[in-house]
Amino acid sequence: MLTNKIMMERDLANIWHPCSQMKDYETLPFIPIKSGKDAYLYDFDNNEYLDAISSWWVNLFGHSNGYINTKIKEQLETLEHVIFAGFSHESAIRLAERLVSLTPQKLQKVFFADNGSSAIEIALKMSFQYYKNSGEVRDIFISLENSYHGETMGALAVGDVALYKEIYNEILIKTVQAKSPALISEEEALLSMEALLKSYDGRVSAVVIEPLVQCAGSMAMYDATYITKLRALCDQYGVFLIADEIAVGFGRTGTLFACEQAEITPDFLCLSKGITGGYLPLSCVMTTDDIYQAFYCDYSEGKSFLDSHSYTGNALACAAANATLDIFENDNVIEKNKAKIKKIAKMLEPFKQLPNVKEVRQRGMIAAIELEGYQSEERIGLQVYQYALQNGVLLRPLGHVIYFMPPFIINDIQIEKMIDIAYQAVKKIAR
Amino acid sequence: MLTNKIMMERDLANIWHPCSQMKDYETLPFIPIKSGKDAYLYDFDNNEYLDAISSWWVNLFGHSNGYINTKIKEQLETLEHVIFAGFSHESAIRLAERLVSLTPQKLQKVFFADNGSSAIEIALKMSFQYYKNSGEVRDIFISLENSYHGETMGALAVGDVALYKEIYNEILIKTVQAKSPALISEEEALLSMEALLKSYDGRVSAVVIEPLVQCAGSMAMYDATYITKLRALCDQYGVFLIADEIAVGFGRTGTLFACEQAEITPDFLCLSKGITGGYLPLSCVMTTDDIYQAFYCDYSEGKSFLDSHSYTGNALACAAANATLDIFENDNVIEKNKAKIKKIAKMLEPFKQLPNVKEVRQRGMIAAIELEGYQSEERIGLQVYQYALQNGVLLRPLGHVIYFMPPFIINDIQIEKMIDIAYQAVKKIAR
Repeated sequence: MLTNKIMMERDLANIWHPCSQMKDYETLPFIPIKSGKDAYLYDFDNNEYLDAISSWWVNLFGHSNGYINTKIKEQLETLEHVIFAGFSHESAIRLAERLVSLTPQKLQKVFFADNGSSAIEIALKMSFQYYKNSGEVRDIFISLENSYHGETMGALAVGDVALYKEIYNEILIKTVQAKSPALISEEEALLSMEALLKSYDGRVSAVVIEPLVQCAGSMAMYDATYITKLRALCDQYGVFLIADEIAVGFGRTGTLFACEQAEITPDFLCLSKGITGGYLPLSCVMTTDDIYQAFYCDYSEGKSFLDSHSYTGNALACAAANATLDIFENDNVIEKNKAKIKKIAKMLEPFKQLPNVKEVRQRGMIAAIELEGYQSEERIGLQVYQYALQNGVLLRPLGHVIYFMPPFIINDIQIEKMIDIAYQAVKKIAR
Repeated sequence: MLTNKIMMERDLANIWHPCSQMKDYETLPFIPIKSGKDAYLYDFDNNEYLDAISSWWVNLFGHSNGYINTKIKEQLETLEHVIFAGFSHESAIRLAERLVSLTPQKLQKVFFADNGSSAIEIALKMSFQYYKNSGEVRDIFISLENSYHGETMGALAVGDVALYKEIYNEILIKTVQAKSPALISEEEALLSMEALLKSYDGRVSAVVIEPLVQCAGSMAMYDATYITKLRALCDQYGVFLIADEIAVGFGRTGTLFACEQAEITPDFLCLSKGITGGYLPLSCVMTTDDIYQAFYCDYSEGKSFLDSHSYTGNALACAAANATLDIFENDNVIEKNKAKIKKIAKMLEPFKQLPNVKEVRQRGMIAAIELEGYQSEERIGLQVYQYALQNGVLLRPLGHVIYFMPPFIINDIQIEKMIDIAYQAVKKIAR
């Protein structure tokens, strides 16, 4: 009989887990999961956990979703995967058509990859090469302070969260960061951006942002008006705007894509995570026909974009993505989420009265509670993590910021449970 | 009724394909695949293609493999995915145990990711951070000339194929390349490596190689003795050895892993592609307990390896990987491939008599025919590509090098067809 204890020991004998100090697992809960269904995960000791963080921001419609399962099984019977250079398949073609129809009109081309970091790298490489193809070397990328865009060395270089980046500084290319509208006023943030655009005029390929929410940056949030004004600035200085909607896309911020709220079209839109409903790694970069045309020429001109990953356009992942878009359409998800968003907002009100709560913030289906009065060495978030797990809710605070990013199938009772447990935890640690 | 023509038009309206000059598709074949079964792919006009390159070096046991399909379906019914920090699941635990038992004894820890480039980045970051954790900054990586290790900016920086790398030089960190044993003598290559190790003594984190075959480097091949001697050099100079077995692992070179032939243990072993039998993106970096321990300490010491990708350890991909390892075991694949390897060798003999063939080379289930007498502008490989497709075989020459990397389920008749068609093509273009 497999138990949590047995599975934990087997696991820790061989596996080095991501984003972990492995020694922490000597004292922190480590949970081997046996199965998942809807919003719940079940361990080998038959405890259940409400997955309030969508298993790292990926799951949209629950674990082991019957509809998505069926569509993947159908795909398994026809084609699991095929090389995507010179070849194609129906699920990718259909997915590209749908993504083009769901995003701003000018985003007409879809370049597939397999993970989020790679999508960012592709957008960086495409924006750099666009200028190189016309004889300009623009070696500067601008991002925001407190931003996070992934773990590979290009994506990490445009990030700014010291925890992930600092130790690798000597092996990362230099990039520049503008002030974040999530941390200071929009006006100051725009002035900081414009100062950089001016100072590096002619050397900047692209500005990259995570629209509305800097997710791994402690769920810091800012308004759509910043994005609208940033778009204008990018146009004025002739640089590309890359929107990293890897985490915030697919309904998380209340609209299908966060950029909709700013009524702008980015030059590059990076998508991943939720794109497959949380089932499989898949990513893509969407861009305009103008940019596509700058690479379209005789091969001998040497302007081709030759990036590739073996599993680019993977058929099983595309089938999961099409099933995910089916559910958005058939179940009217964006509309139905509005009531859930209101319910979450209402449930968050009482936190504002707690002495150890600095700020409560929300953008659509993402909400965060920032605690105050703790030293970072206390790792206060871990106490919340442990309390919540003991009470059947998977939260995973970022430092002293507790957040919710639940799957969209979460119901009212589950929303109440998720937030109640967090409330109890925050109250318990108040001094 | 969906036809190739309809599907091609729909595809090219929206999709920007990897590793492609899109304008080429105005004249080159572009093939929308409807289904796959065993070694064959079928298009919408019901043509069949023998997949002689395993759909970009990933497929091992055929398309839509009944056994792997069954195992993925079972996984779908229990758990499709769960966050892999603080959580785990049976398929990943089992896969890690099996990988540890199949690789050299000292490789005891498995760090999962989702694509090959990310595995390389993780090995680079781990090797750099290992030294940083003990206060040393070792900012130099050494790789081989003509090497390829992926597309993200860290992986690209340690690569050396100008076609993929050169255009991005200004946004890549500097690395250094030793002579390749595949292009000059082993002795000269080792001298070149030692000269670099000496000249950068104390600044080198790691040497990274693709053992036995530089796959994207025109399938250039070299002997295991080089790797054995390189291991000794790395030990002598105190630098890590990263073995990139993303393409050459899982039986491609005749043994389960290429490093076995050199009887060495790398400090980091990167695996991907064939790991899931060609079904799904998954990768991992295997390393030693010594290296693991250098990151294992109290969190406050700041030595944790905090890399992560959302889909790290994806349950569906792990299920496909376990099914793939089952087939290796149950069907005695490595042993059975020996006859196929001999068959391929025998079939390649006649090429050596052709006037336009410079070299025929083979390592296990990978074989290559290098043509000579053509200018690169002729893009002679494309003529072979077209001829083969018209005759029902998917080859994809690298420049003027035609290669075979078939799935292991290929039978004798299919081997004959694959090589016969290539022979006809090469003969046809001889002058």
